[in-house]
Amino acid sequence: MKTNFADRVIRRTRTLECPVLAGMDPRPELLSPALLTEAGGSAAGLARSYVRFAEEVFDGLVDVVPAVKIQIAFYEALGVPGFEAYFATVRLARERGFLVIGDIKRGDIGTSSAAYAEAHLGPAARRIGADVDAVTLNPYLGVDALEPFLDRCKEDGRGAFVLVRTSNPSAPQIQDLIAGGLPVHRRVAALVEEWGASLAGEEGYSSLGAVVGATYREELASIRAAHPGLLILVPGYGAQGGTADDVGACLDDRGSGLLVASSRGILRAYRKAAEERRCPAQAIRTAAIDMRDAIRSAFEASRRNRS
Amino acid sequence: MKTNFADRVIRRTRTLECPVLAGMDPRPELLSPALLTEAGGSAAGLARSYVRFAEEVFDGLVDVVPAVKIQIAFYEALGVPGFEAYFATVRLARERGFLVIGDIKRGDIGTSSAAYAEAHLGPAARRIGADVDAVTLNPYLGVDALEPFLDRCKEDGRGAFVLVRTSNPSAPQIQDLIAGGLPVHRRVAALVEEWGASLAGEEGYSSLGAVVGATYREELASIRAAHPGLLILVPGYGAQGGTADDVGACLDDRGSGLLVASSRGILRAYRKAAEERRCPAQAIRTAAIDMRDAIRSAFEASRRNRS
Repeated sequence: MKTNFADRVIRRTRTLECPVLAGMDPRPELLSPALLTEAGGSAAGLARSYVRFAEEVFDGLVDVVPAVKIQIAFYEALGVPGFEAYFATVRLARERGFLVIGDIKRGDIGTSSAAYAEAHLGPAARRIGADVDAVTLNPYLGVDALEPFLDRCKEDGRGAFVLVRTSNPSAPQIQDLIAGGLPVHRRVAALVEEWGASLAGEEGYSSLGAVVGATYREELASIRAAHPGLLILVPGYGAQGGTADDVGACLDDRGSGLLVASSRGILRAYRKAAEERRCPAQAIRTAAIDMRDAIRSAFEASRRNRS
Repeated sequence: MKTNFADRVIRRTRTLECPVLAGMDPRPELLSPALLTEAGGSAAGLARSYVRFAEEVFDGLVDVVPAVKIQIAFYEALGVPGFEAYFATVRLARERGFLVIGDIKRGDIGTSSAAYAEAHLGPAARRIGADVDAVTLNPYLGVDALEPFLDRCKEDGRGAFVLVRTSNPSAPQIQDLIAGGLPVHRRVAALVEEWGASLAGEEGYSSLGAVVGATYREELASIRAAHPGLLILVPGYGAQGGTADDVGACLDDRGSGLLVASSRGILRAYRKAAEERRCPAQAIRTAAIDMRDAIRSAFEASRRNRS
């Protein structure tokens, strides 16, 4: 049995003193002119360029960030060659030693849910070396939709992050409805804590975590305070508006408990460097280090205020 | 511009006097012994057998059911060859003239949502002839997650069904929380009606529909009554417990407004026939006709009570 996923996240975050989760969200406009030319006009060409892109980005991130998150939607948009590229990218990330999160946001029931768990965490993915350490999941269907994933979490040290409060403008439409005196997202956070109780690791966190956007700082702070054992994946940093202060204040006393995702903020450095004939991998590395240092400073400032 | 999706569903349902939506949920245990042998032990072999299976099933359903629903999870579980089989199955269903619903239950935001819409309804899918008429979507992230799909609905006559009240045992955990005097699923139904207002067709229904399980007959009836212009995809018939009476009572006065999904109920006839050396396509046809007739009888009985 593998080490508990939450423990792996917490330890890696503390060792690197870095809670940054680099988001791999490939799109044509992020590629270098050279990779775009190589891609030609076909989906298969673009898919190959996405893999090359990921290779250089990951090279830049080694020993800086503990984990990467791969957004499957951008690969799915390329059809069959896109899925080939997705699995190749997962393999590359694993080979570089990152914890790998598949941002799949799946949610279905019964045998369909089991099929998704099989596809991303289970034997089918493992056979091609493309099993991820954790996935993102949608809670709307209740715990049925999570059970096959929870089984894999328990048996093979995998993890999952359930959408609790997303970072987008229309998130409040359902997630902030008030039910029993609390917004729905707080009810979901409580359910996630309950569902993940048997997945607690030695470092104080459960392998069933939550997705909570940094764009809503008060919601993030209140969920953090109410559920201190919830490992939180935080999208919305940077381009979407979340700041280092917002997340620094929500890290635990040892600088962990969150994985702060950034894709555009880091990936844009790639194309800019390529255009200026600087080394893209080095530019990616600098962007990730800058983000890490900004969060570290905000965390140190917040920690001084705590004591 | 293509005809409005809801109009196509309603007209096809009325022409065939059949609201049955045949669910293509391929799994090894549903295949004939011959197809299983052909599959061998590999994912690629199984994927090929899934396409052969779909071919025979669809042949049996021509001119009986108006639409088929293809559950992508079972293909996703087979990795890259699985996706090839999924797209091939969509193409087969289109060639046979069915309305095709991709049961993808996706839900993401911004550029990720746009990528999913591209993958299943948009140019990427169209290029390989595997664009579906409609998809299923998850509402938890709010309307942001739907917008790229709504654009396709408006521009190309596509449709989408948003999960409102699912058929599984844990559906109540979030969907039945009471918010503002109504269960969350009723609030979601109202939002879906609002979001789909601009997609209304000539037959009284919108191309943005809802998924409401037949396993909860009272919820189905109350949603039907509260939102008469909502096209409803109804899972949970048969194996999961929904009956012909439950759905017959919710059809409109012309026998439409619902698409009643059945996968196991219909697909099991295939293997049974193969084992008994009867024609599987004929057995599938008989199973679908039996289901259609049971719903027709229940509908007629219900209609007599209405007047």
